[in-house]
Amino acid sequence: MVPKVVFGKGSYEQLAEIIKPQRKSKAPFVFIVDDVFKESNEVIDKIPLNFNDKILYVSADEEPKTKQIDEIVQNLKSEFNYTPSGIIGIGGGSILDVTKAVSIMLTNPGNARDYQGWDLVKKKAVYHVGIPTISGTGSEVSRTTVLTGPTKKLGINSDFTPFDQVILDPDLTIGVPKDQWFYTGMDCFIHCVESLNGTFLNAFSESYGEKAYDLCKEIFVENKISEEEKRGKLMMASWHGGMSIAYSQVGIAHAMSYGLSYVLGTKHGIGNCIVFNQLEKYYGEDVVLFKEMVERFDITIPKNVCGNLSEIQMNTMIDVALGLVPLWENALGKDWESIMTRDVLKALYLKM
Amino acid sequence: MVPKVVFGKGSYEQLAEIIKPQRKSKAPFVFIVDDVFKESNEVIDKIPLNFNDKILYVSADEEPKTKQIDEIVQNLKSEFNYTPSGIIGIGGGSILDVTKAVSIMLTNPGNARDYQGWDLVKKKAVYHVGIPTISGTGSEVSRTTVLTGPTKKLGINSDFTPFDQVILDPDLTIGVPKDQWFYTGMDCFIHCVESLNGTFLNAFSESYGEKAYDLCKEIFVENKISEEEKRGKLMMASWHGGMSIAYSQVGIAHAMSYGLSYVLGTKHGIGNCIVFNQLEKYYGEDVVLFKEMVERFDITIPKNVCGNLSEIQMNTMIDVALGLVPLWENALGKDWESIMTRDVLKALYLKM
Repeated sequence: MVPKVVFGKGSYEQLAEIIKPQRKSKAPFVFIVDDVFKESNEVIDKIPLNFNDKILYVSADEEPKTKQIDEIVQNLKSEFNYTPSGIIGIGGGSILDVTKAVSIMLTNPGNARDYQGWDLVKKKAVYHVGIPTISGTGSEVSRTTVLTGPTKKLGINSDFTPFDQVILDPDLTIGVPKDQWFYTGMDCFIHCVESLNGTFLNAFSESYGEKAYDLCKEIFVENKISEEEKRGKLMMASWHGGMSIAYSQVGIAHAMSYGLSYVLGTKHGIGNCIVFNQLEKYYGEDVVLFKEMVERFDITIPKNVCGNLSEIQMNTMIDVALGLVPLWENALGKDWESIMTRDVLKALYLKM
Repeated sequence: MVPKVVFGKGSYEQLAEIIKPQRKSKAPFVFIVDDVFKESNEVIDKIPLNFNDKILYVSADEEPKTKQIDEIVQNLKSEFNYTPSGIIGIGGGSILDVTKAVSIMLTNPGNARDYQGWDLVKKKAVYHVGIPTISGTGSEVSRTTVLTGPTKKLGINSDFTPFDQVILDPDLTIGVPKDQWFYTGMDCFIHCVESLNGTFLNAFSESYGEKAYDLCKEIFVENKISEEEKRGKLMMASWHGGMSIAYSQVGIAHAMSYGLSYVLGTKHGIGNCIVFNQLEKYYGEDVVLFKEMVERFDITIPKNVCGNLSEIQMNTMIDVALGLVPLWENALGKDWESIMTRDVLKALYLKM
């Protein structure tokens, strides 16, 4: 779990004070920042750059890749003689995942793809801080960093993945475009549905999942609170949703969304929405509720995204999705393979 | 925050595996265990004693004292040449607080009383693990360890106080006597009421407080779930309630209960109940709900506990309670001193 967190409007301004005790002589802080903030005074001007500290702008247009992580790490090793004092990620789920992966790969040998899986990381990562600027992914609290590698889309799940420090400042989410706000918020909603309906559920995950689910309903269904309250509550929903899956697992929507993303490059939030929209058979009333929310906020969910896939592409998509065994087992139980055959999965993808 | 936690029925059996990597050559693990478990096979036989490891039985009949901590630390320093590899607390809030305080005082100079307050601890504590055997105190997750010292009852609140590891095994709470179960569960309920009605509230504390409050209602009001489910849910309620106050503060019931405890030695759980029972003016409907729960479970709340106090005792009680400034400020706002005068407080105590 994340050992330290601060929360509150304006808490971003505590960044300098928070990271200061971690500075080691000659070793820089590296700030990995979503490049949409390049011109943002609110975000950039408050980054406490000192000595040889560096800002690295990263685009979140594509999902993070193992190769991208290796390149960033290689460049940092070439540029600096000392392992950085800390890596600070400022952005959405992609940027936070890049931050976590870079901090791991700065201290562990080999390539990022070698660590896709569960508990393969052996050495403590560089001190890393997560500062989310959009709410819903749960990346700020999770023990994974999801990467697309040469053969699979799979996270680096380890005890060393979680941030050492998180700063939750709801004001940083001001200005997120509506569609993106919705897709990412639904990532959280879907985390909860998958966790609460999974076979891995226990009272720990349940209590977090229920709270995040209730908060999502307050924001996206009841819709009676101010924008400011929504920002604070959605940030906490993301946090609790992330905690819920940290101790259980996600399910069908995530497994299928990983397939979409691997073959088509679909971003995670929208990918989850495309998939979840077709999962009424598995997540019944929650899919009905999801469709109501889509309508209420006048959101467009892309259709016919799999219609033109080649057979090879479709098979790859199915392979990537079915490879995520714990997700299927959580969703459908130990006999999941007899329920979710390749044909059933293909038919589902073709509806999307 | 607590960086590592495991949850689940039977998770206590993972203790050996969890602490093993922390063992330093010749440095023992010290298990601080509530002496009610002296004859318990379930608890004692599963403690993984090796080499020079030691079990230290501690009574929870009285609230932890600074002097008691100093004595335990002195004895451990005399008995062992090496600072322990870890301190593992197995018991209720008192035992967990003793564990946290001992682990701090093994690495910090001076006496425990020197650290009563906020952020006075400068050195990292010895690795410490918390294993609650009753639910409600929130001690398993909090950044305080509440001690009665020569001049005050006040916690050692610091970044080094929280456990490095917590094991939440609901089965360990089997067999708690009904009254104790209720009083300690109400400690959690009161944490939530005080946090949710406090002026320090923010969306972080609110989301945790609301969840814990809802779980308490599920257990103590709706009363529709199995005993096993209740154990898991109350353990999580305690956790979330503790998280809620970690980022806000408690209020009137806790301030007054500390006074009771300091002068009369009243245990914390029952003390909170004695006080909360008389706070309808301040916590309205929640006190009504509390009284319903008391009736439903046929619990006796002691009465007339302050009737025979000397004037000196009453003044000391008032001094101790009013000394807890942040609690009053949270409960009643910045002008709390004009609302909670010594006379008002005395009148409240005399009703108890």
